[in-house]
Amino acid sequence: MVSNAISVKVRWSEADPAGIVFYPRFYEWFDLGTEALFESLGLAWPEMFPAERIVGVPIVESGARFASPVGYGDVLRSGTTMREVRQKTFRVEHQVTVGERRCATGFEVRG
Amino acid sequence: MVSNAISVKVRWSEADPAGIVFYPRFYEWFDLGTEALFESLGLAWPEMFPAERIVGVPIVESGARFASPVGYGDVLRSGTTMREVRQKTFRVEHQVTVGERRCATGFEVRG
Amino acid sequence: MVSNAISVKVRWSEADPAGIVFYPRFYEWFDLGTEALFESLGLAWPEMFPAERIVGVPIVESGARFASPVGYGDVLRSGTTMREVRQKTFRVEHQVTVGERRCATGFEVRG
Amino acid sequence: MVSNAISVKVRWSEADPAGIVFYPRFYEWFDLGTEALFESLGLAWPEMFPAERIVGVPIVESGARFASPVGYGDVLRSGTTMREVRQKTFRVEHQVTVGERRCATGFEVRG
Repeated sequence: MVSNAISVKVRWSEADPAGIVFYPRFYEWFDLGTEALFESLGLAWPEMFPAERIVGVPIVESGARFASPVGYGDVLRSGTTMREVRQKTFRVEHQVTVGERRCATGFEVRG
Repeated sequence: MVSNAISVKVRWSEADPAGIVFYPRFYEWFDLGTEALFESLGLAWPEMFPAERIVGVPIVESGARFASPVGYGDVLRSGTTMREVRQKTFRVEHQVTVGERRCATGFEVRG
Repeated sequence: MVSNAISVKVRWSEADPAGIVFYPRFYEWFDLGTEALFESLGLAWPEMFPAERIVGVPIVESGARFASPVGYGDVLRSGTTMREVRQKTFRVEHQVTVGERRCATGFEVRG
Repeated sequence: MVSNAISVKVRWSEADPAGIVFYPRFYEWFDLGTEALFESLGLAWPEMFPAERIVGVPIVESGARFASPVGYGDVLRSGTTMREVRQKTFRVEHQVTVGERRCATGFEVRG
């Protein structure tokens, strides 16, 4: 199975008044992880999209379960696995950990 | 059923190089919608949280399906409905539309 | 002198672990204020830019002084005044207040 | 003179519909650069701030000149130099480059 992982240091701008990460930021990391998975396969998005007609990789569905908070300054690992490739869409799954602690799992279906 | 709706004008900062909204922003609007639903019930979060100990309303799970893109400058309506209240968690559902066009549906389980 | 003001309710996503707004957000509001000033003159940016060739209004210089913090849930007023129009650039000045409290002043030179 | 540099790969979420970086993001990188400068001196902010009373390093003034745009996928270098330390404030200066191209210069006065 095709998989890849990225390391992200949580920015001050990503943490909220409760001192932990505002949850939509996890989806930003999922997007970074999917991008990195493609790059690991030699398909870097910035090169794939012509400058005059950047289209991106449209999202169809996404979701996540949050098990444990991530805090400012944490260095997280987000692992991404290509689970399913269909004719028009593909499904990737993500797992965010800080050290041994499992923080979130999620998925994206993109077209 | 308890429900509420907000109106959001899409900011330049929320649109991506493809000219449409980067999908994690939808979850930011879901969060705004949930906050507004509580405010409509007289439970404004900024007042509920003491300044020295802001805790927020922790997320357990979220998800969304994206049917049609939202663009820069669009004025969207995000409707939020309280679907289920359990002992420790509640579930809200969201529906984002631009005019008659259904753009996304989503949910949050929060604790 | 041409001027305009916008009202912004500070989002959870704009506040940081110190419970106040992360300062780059002020520049996002300056951008919103400049956009609103143009819109008040009948020059709405979303309509001015063709969908296939969105160019924006390039920034040349910006700056700000921060007098008092803005917090989550605050409703701020950001006033924008066109101070100078040159052949290729213009200068707008911004003033952010919460009630009577002056929170920040800033400027943008754009081309 | 105390100085440090960070490397940042521009995220999809930081680029705007014009395909280039929305300018407030430069200030986010300035903040990252200042944080990294302190960390290089053994003063990591996440460790300096107690979890129950995160205060940050308040901003007094900031500014920037933008010479050349930064695009999605660019890997930029942001150099930070401590220019002046006063009794209650300090001034850092930043220089953002992509390869040999100078993209922006800026400063922060923080307290």
